[in-house]
Amino acid sequence: MTSPKNKHPEKDYESYEQQAAKVIAENARGGAPFGVLGAVINERIKPAILRRVAPLMIGFIRRSGVRIKRMERGHVVCEMPLRGNKNHVKTMYAGALFTLAEFPGGVLYLSSFDQKKFYPIVTELSIKYIAPATGDVSVEFKLSDADLNRIANDAEENGKASFELFGELKLDDGTIVATTVGNYQLRSRRTAVRPPAAT
Amino acid sequence: MTSPKNKHPEKDYESYEQQAAKVIAENARGGAPFGVLGAVINERIKPAILRRVAPLMIGFIRRSGVRIKRMERGHVVCEMPLRGNKNHVKTMYAGALFTLAEFPGGVLYLSSFDQKKFYPIVTELSIKYIAPATGDVSVEFKLSDADLNRIANDAEENGKASFELFGELKLDDGTIVATTVGNYQLRSRRTAVRPPAAT
Repeated sequence: MTSPKNKHPEKDYESYEQQAAKVIAENARGGAPFGVLGAVINERIKPAILRRVAPLMIGFIRRSGVRIKRMERGHVVCEMPLRGNKNHVKTMYAGALFTLAEFPGGVLYLSSFDQKKFYPIVTELSIKYIAPATGDVSVEFKLSDADLNRIANDAEENGKASFELFGELKLDDGTIVATTVGNYQLRSRRTAVRPPAAT
Repeated sequence: MTSPKNKHPEKDYESYEQQAAKVIAENARGGAPFGVLGAVINERIKPAILRRVAPLMIGFIRRSGVRIKRMERGHVVCEMPLRGNKNHVKTMYAGALFTLAEFPGGVLYLSSFDQKKFYPIVTELSIKYIAPATGDVSVEFKLSDADLNRIANDAEENGKASFELFGELKLDDGTIVATTVGNYQLRSRRTAVRPPAAT
């Protein structure tokens, strides 16, 4: 087995970011799941509601049946049920495992960053399959307070901050079925409506 | 934006392959979608049926609504509808784009290799997001006769053959919304039931 190498063609990322920013600016409620309701929901019960509502916001994710088991500042645990997500050999389908790795990035954003100031985008995600996923699979992501503050400050000052999330997707008995590397950006909403610089 | 690097921990791949082989051996009809029906379906209409049936075989894929537009030996085109697959900013969700990149590898297997002799596994897939996917997205994969023969011969002789598929996910107007690199293996069924070597 050859060692996997990065073989994506070189692309100007700024173009993606500007386009994503434009799309998000056009959908003003993009990163703010409660919209106007947000103002009247008690801050203490908001996390509990959000934990249940977040997996329902995107149809593709809702249909997978993924659950948020833990959702705190800098700490997220999600679980994908095997039921409904089996492939033709009765283990978990590769795309369900991908979704389990991708979705928590958004959850971590919701629990860790000010949604009025920032929004997240995913720029790249790579998944390596280690063992057949013969049961429910969970993944945990953690970012320290220092990391969170650095990312928020960076995005505030420079309009954007890149960060990576490394995932280990595990069965209940701890067996790692896949590892993932996700590249995310936290972007300031203040720069989202700025038009691309003339060149 | 830093250039993405491979940051997966080093793992013994042979372990995954052996486990996958065991799972597939336990599900004998794994790669043969027609099972006993296969013998009575006319060889000429089989591809037309398979093109419609293949996206329905795995629930996760079926729910995405992905369609096979073209399915020939060494040539597959698939399309993912935006409808039902939107994210919170109304573009196509990252996981739907991943599924569009992953699924055709199985389709290419079905249209290009002898299912009685071989089965495929995906070992790694990386996706890089280039532009927001604002409409239906399609992807095309091609392998030459020479490549197909080399892969089949390699798998026949050595029990397995690795190959890569590079994808460009495109909107109808040709805009590339993501690029993907998939690592696959074609494995011989003859070695699927061989127990792991004692070490």
